[in-house]
Amino acid sequence: MTVGEPVGEDTQPYAPPVDTGEAVGSAVSRLTITLGYGPSLFDHRFGLAARKPAALAQLPPLPNENPDPDYTGGDLCVQACSDDPLVAFHAVRNLARIGMGVVEHHWMELGFGRTSATTTGQQTPRNLLGFKDGTRNIKAEQAELMDGYVWVGPETDHPWLRGGSYLIARKIRIFVENWDRDYLQDQENVIGRAKVSGAPLSGGTEFTAPDFAATGSGGQPAIPAHAHVRLASFERNGGTRILRRGYSFTDGIDPQAGTLLGGLFFIAFMKDPAQFIRLQTALADDSLNEYIQHTGSAVFACPPGLRPGQHWGDTLFT
Amino acid sequence: MTVGEPVGEDTQPYAPPVDTGEAVGSAVSRLTITLGYGPSLFDHRFGLAARKPAALAQLPPLPNENPDPDYTGGDLCVQACSDDPLVAFHAVRNLARIGMGVVEHHWMELGFGRTSATTTGQQTPRNLLGFKDGTRNIKAEQAELMDGYVWVGPETDHPWLRGGSYLIARKIRIFVENWDRDYLQDQENVIGRAKVSGAPLSGGTEFTAPDFAATGSGGQPAIPAHAHVRLASFERNGGTRILRRGYSFTDGIDPQAGTLLGGLFFIAFMKDPAQFIRLQTALADDSLNEYIQHTGSAVFACPPGLRPGQHWGDTLFT
Repeated sequence: MTVGEPVGEDTQPYAPPVDTGEAVGSAVSRLTITLGYGPSLFDHRFGLAARKPAALAQLPPLPNENPDPDYTGGDLCVQACSDDPLVAFHAVRNLARIGMGVVEHHWMELGFGRTSATTTGQQTPRNLLGFKDGTRNIKAEQAELMDGYVWVGPETDHPWLRGGSYLIARKIRIFVENWDRDYLQDQENVIGRAKVSGAPLSGGTEFTAPDFAATGSGGQPAIPAHAHVRLASFERNGGTRILRRGYSFTDGIDPQAGTLLGGLFFIAFMKDPAQFIRLQTALADDSLNEYIQHTGSAVFACPPGLRPGQHWGDTLFT
Repeated sequence: MTVGEPVGEDTQPYAPPVDTGEAVGSAVSRLTITLGYGPSLFDHRFGLAARKPAALAQLPPLPNENPDPDYTGGDLCVQACSDDPLVAFHAVRNLARIGMGVVEHHWMELGFGRTSATTTGQQTPRNLLGFKDGTRNIKAEQAELMDGYVWVGPETDHPWLRGGSYLIARKIRIFVENWDRDYLQDQENVIGRAKVSGAPLSGGTEFTAPDFAATGSGGQPAIPAHAHVRLASFERNGGTRILRRGYSFTDGIDPQAGTLLGGLFFIAFMKDPAQFIRLQTALADDSLNEYIQHTGSAVFACPPGLRPGQHWGDTLFT
């Protein structure tokens, strides 16, 4: 969303008398709402410049991206998650509606099929590549990793962000038809894992640690040099990890090309956007780049969850 | 989808060796697949002209429509329904993939939050107008109504369609911001029902039959003359009924106008498309037309469900 001046002569924000109603009678369906502040919010005329964390900046140019301005940036971000898409939609619609005349919708994406395992008990879900996604993701129970890589700690120069996190969103188009034409063995070499079991190509089962030094027949690396899991691994990136929490998406059919528009709506949380920048930079020679492209991008600083009696508007002033 | 000649020199349709995989490990999630044949399928070079039912024709121009060619028509239709959107997406993707080089994707829409009550036990769901949708819908248990209005009977000139039905799809944009600015009382007058309870404005509770002759204060009709439920009622349309089975949809944000793109993906089944044509024609002066527009449209003839050992390709030749 973009926060601006009230529109037109009616400077009184419109106060809707009732809820829009489509979720009346629906269960809560595990609704959660996450709010984020984009870098541009602090540059506007709201007097927030002094509260802008140094790390909250537009992302630099990164490999394999072609950002569409219609899916990039934003002053505010609202992420609504629910088991029922109607409940999530309703939450976003009504928050946007409260801001009628003051905020402007910039972009929105409906995701489905969460792709990244985020707890250890969870069966690892699959993305639209058909591969398990999140086998090595940080899990919510791993408090040490959460503190080390996800939550902003006391070291921050901005107390309002302590216990919060940075959210990076990337709309990643998968060229589904090209991927679907590829041979299974090549797909597995691109990822570095077996498709069905999720085991690394160096052997074992899904949760066996990949052995990047292992060689296969002919002395070639068992996990190819440009395999996605190798280049993205924390072992190759100074231990850098992030918490991924992505979703699949589809935008229907490209009317010109007749191809299926869809892919991964990548969402990740981290204590510093530098973590994502490092990992994405490391993917410059990823074999997977032939089949995907980043077409949307945004970064937000998310305050920690609200305490009873606290309002989102307060979070920047703690 | 559009069925055409094989693309390029490789006239051998591509036979994918394995499933695309994204639903491996997912539950069946009540997946159902409905196939439909569009009028244009029979006009192609497949020798099917003699099998085209007379009633299967492009819809005539209808009130309040502005069909986008990118969301209109098609030779074949695949409707996949599931409790899990990933499972539905997977089904459509893999059917399309089997046809690689022979069929072309034309359009696709992901729906959520089924809007129309279709069984009597079901709590009536709501559409994005926030109103209950389907209170007076034909219910699956009402065998007499199903036979009278939904299933194609023995009277058909085309045995392959006996026990099948016509599917009409309409992509109906709701101008959400305009609707949300309207007063509750006006919204209720537009629909002809109370928003929360779903009761007709002539009184009673949700399932009380609307009394179109009832008058309110000042002698005006309790259900206004141009209310949606009045104009759409079977009482006003020679008893005409259809089985609606719609979904909500969103296409995100209109990047030019900054408005929310979404609405009702209307799907209805009937024994003759003339039923829909009559009802939609009757809505020419519907008060609701100020807030909605039909932007996509298609009609298909759906063969009955398959018997064991039968293949969809056989259904046209029974």
